[in-house]
Amino acid sequence: MASYDDVMSLSVRRGFLWPAVDLYGGFAGFYDYGHNGTLLRRRWEDLWIETFLGLSDNYHLIDTTTILPELPLKASGHVDHFTDVLVTCTRCGESYRGDHLLEAVTHEEHEGLTPEEIDARIREVNVRCPNCKGELGPSRTFNMMFPLAVGPTGKDRAYLRPETAQGVYLNFKREFEALRRRLPMGLAIIGRAYRNEISPRQGTYRMREFLQAELQIFFDPETFADEVPFDSLAETPVRVAWADEKSGRTAHDVPAKDLVARGLPTWYVAHLVAVQAFYLDRLEVPRPAFRFAELDEKERAFYNKIHFDIQVDQESLGGFKEVGGVHYRSDHDLAGHEAVSRERQSVTVGSRKIVPHVLELSFGVDRNVWALLDLGLTKGERTVLRLPARLAPVPVAVFPLLNKDGLPEKASEIHVALRRRAGAFYDDSGSIGKRYARMDEIGTPYCVTVDYETLEGKGVTLRERDTQRQVRVPEPHLADTLAALLAGERRFADLS
Amino acid sequence: MASYDDVMSLSVRRGFLWPAVDLYGGFAGFYDYGHNGTLLRRRWEDLWIETFLGLSDNYHLIDTTTILPELPLKASGHVDHFTDVLVTCTRCGESYRGDHLLEAVTHEEHEGLTPEEIDARIREVNVRCPNCKGELGPSRTFNMMFPLAVGPTGKDRAYLRPETAQGVYLNFKREFEALRRRLPMGLAIIGRAYRNEISPRQGTYRMREFLQAELQIFFDPETFADEVPFDSLAETPVRVAWADEKSGRTAHDVPAKDLVARGLPTWYVAHLVAVQAFYLDRLEVPRPAFRFAELDEKERAFYNKIHFDIQVDQESLGGFKEVGGVHYRSDHDLAGHEAVSRERQSVTVGSRKIVPHVLELSFGVDRNVWALLDLGLTKGERTVLRLPARLAPVPVAVFPLLNKDGLPEKASEIHVALRRRAGAFYDDSGSIGKRYARMDEIGTPYCVTVDYETLEGKGVTLRERDTQRQVRVPEPHLADTLAALLAGERRFADLS
Repeated sequence: MASYDDVMSLSVRRGFLWPAVDLYGGFAGFYDYGHNGTLLRRRWEDLWIETFLGLSDNYHLIDTTTILPELPLKASGHVDHFTDVLVTCTRCGESYRGDHLLEAVTHEEHEGLTPEEIDARIREVNVRCPNCKGELGPSRTFNMMFPLAVGPTGKDRAYLRPETAQGVYLNFKREFEALRRRLPMGLAIIGRAYRNEISPRQGTYRMREFLQAELQIFFDPETFADEVPFDSLAETPVRVAWADEKSGRTAHDVPAKDLVARGLPTWYVAHLVAVQAFYLDRLEVPRPAFRFAELDEKERAFYNKIHFDIQVDQESLGGFKEVGGVHYRSDHDLAGHEAVSRERQSVTVGSRKIVPHVLELSFGVDRNVWALLDLGLTKGERTVLRLPARLAPVPVAVFPLLNKDGLPEKASEIHVALRRRAGAFYDDSGSIGKRYARMDEIGTPYCVTVDYETLEGKGVTLRERDTQRQVRVPEPHLADTLAALLAGERRFADLS
Repeated sequence: MASYDDVMSLSVRRGFLWPAVDLYGGFAGFYDYGHNGTLLRRRWEDLWIETFLGLSDNYHLIDTTTILPELPLKASGHVDHFTDVLVTCTRCGESYRGDHLLEAVTHEEHEGLTPEEIDARIREVNVRCPNCKGELGPSRTFNMMFPLAVGPTGKDRAYLRPETAQGVYLNFKREFEALRRRLPMGLAIIGRAYRNEISPRQGTYRMREFLQAELQIFFDPETFADEVPFDSLAETPVRVAWADEKSGRTAHDVPAKDLVARGLPTWYVAHLVAVQAFYLDRLEVPRPAFRFAELDEKERAFYNKIHFDIQVDQESLGGFKEVGGVHYRSDHDLAGHEAVSRERQSVTVGSRKIVPHVLELSFGVDRNVWALLDLGLTKGERTVLRLPARLAPVPVAVFPLLNKDGLPEKASEIHVALRRRAGAFYDDSGSIGKRYARMDEIGTPYCVTVDYETLEGKGVTLRERDTQRQVRVPEPHLADTLAALLAGERRFADLS
């Protein structure tokens, strides 16, 4: 856990991420990724693909345009309902999100209120403009999509997509044909989405341009429960915070079967278990820092029937924050597109015609990357970024102990050999202690040092980031040893 | 080589790509990628990263926002100069790109003309509206960027980026610091760019939203020639079509040293050689289908000092078409940002202060994917997509010969084992001939069939896509054999 400033300071200094366009004084709500941040994010994406597309051999990655014309977004409900309440100061003209204004004063959540309800609450608790103390209001709804005109005449109205999901729904029928008409079918997109946030804030938490990784699982609601195994998971504890425990929600470890007893479908709970395993086992989030937060009817998006946020506790953001969600969207989207496009979205299952239902596993990639930086960063005698080994931008660094006597040549040779198997970095500048410290800061789990004994055929020193322990590894075993360590097949402590 | 319709038909049927939003009647200039197209594109991207970021250990991938505020795009020249000439019909109101109108009639290139020059030529050769034969004009410049407003007030004007390059330039100083102040330094982005084309056409060739892979190499012009080895490349033939051989350019194999003799810097020619090797050796483009086309002053973009297009001959697009470019942008971009932002972009090299120059290797990812489909698709007795083995969406398929007697179980077991090493697909439906044909269509280079002899420990049948030859491979050797074949370390013909 780390403070906001610590995360941002490390991020800027070591090439993870920073506010975009700061050369021109910044660009609120936009962030750029440097070389280490880009690698970290790519490794997160690879792990996500492996984990969630690995759930079935009928789950696939596709990619669709980020600009969409107005009509499908009308059908999906985004043109009419993808709004926040905007409050403007009558005196200074500053704009605010109504729910955030109220939250700041009352410390209660106010999502889902209408402009009239927001105005009433503003008068009730007497909120004034935080900028100039002027009178606020009246509120109005503000669509969060970015509109733009396509083509030379400017007549064709379009939007930057507010979520990747619509691109999948628009291609459902094509892929259903190309993939030989089987349900469940999963289609995922890792790509950008755009929201014209009224007040972007908290680093990468609320951005205007961000990266989503979303898997849409199309299924037959009559048979999905039979297709998703649940019995072996029945006793698995799932960390859940209920919607009815307002402000100061706490998480409980609830056996999966008890969630079913409360009315959640077994297939829904099975996917909660899969998502939880991704966070606890693959991303190595400590159990107390993870929870699912149930959203009630007012809080959840207009298209969701069941909705749990995935939340991770982050000191830099002041507590538990959403990093994703598990959304049962029912047949809302396909039915909406069928109604407006007049193209049938139903498919034949046995003797029935059905419009498939959708379970969406949705992840904010930037939020996940930020959470890894927050959880990983530990400051003390030394600064260490404790990333899971598989996610480290640079898995291995190779150093010559000294810059002479053939040590750099030998180290380079080992570096080149390792680079083919995993990302490896070569460094020969500064003291060996400084070089270790630099790698600790970017989360490199293993460093290899070449010394005089190496030249005598007595192996290299392998150092582990977290314990700073060192062991001697024979050179011929080095590549295999590192591969096994990085794959989690061996533990450093077990090396002799 | 294949016709446009053949490429598009296969693409739609087998999940490569198709016109976006066709559920709502289409969206001109936008394409979506299906599950096989997404995999093909990812493999192309991985190969690109390996090839071009592999040129130096100081070359890195970064990622930046696709929306940029107005000021940096003013500095880069895009607000004022990133324009096409728009001609509108006085009668029916249809809009056209001036140079394309003239090209269609005169069969000559007309890039770089002013609206006045276009109007004069239109009168000279008497071009009428292709739609209604009405009178055209007058022409006007049309900025190809998509403008949008950021924030609730709509006052902050921004644009979708017209190229990834600007994101790199804006981050040059940050990364120069984070990467410890070394030149040459390379920063690459694989990401979307947007151009509001007046008349998008020819499939993925001229799109309004497209994917670029661009590497910007920052260097010191005084020393770059010494840093890029050239002597060993001096005799390498480079396929070039000169700018002065108008209409019906032909390509010549010119020794690299002769290009230097004509005035190109050695470092520039060395990068032409590297790009050519990528196309001929890695993408397996036949030599006659590849060339660099020199662009003269009128044709090249306003920011380029030396500019060769990378072109691939494609039947579906009617001949040689641009898939990328090698651009010497000098210090145009950094100097422009320095002038407008008033932030120094110079760096200290030894005792000198310099603004680095930039060599840009720029690739249209969609255009490359299309070229691979065009070049790979062969129709005859059977339809085969001859993709390079490393680029095939599905490298290996596993079939049980029949759907009984334990064959599916054995095949599944082999499938699962192979899947961990490479993408592998399992199929047990339809005749074995149909299953081979399906894999041939998506370019799968190797199919494994499990038969009764397999159950007796006598190995599996391994079939090669292009020759349809089959060999028997012992099961314990299968994974290694396939890995060696896919890595190009062994040839199928050498298997006994």
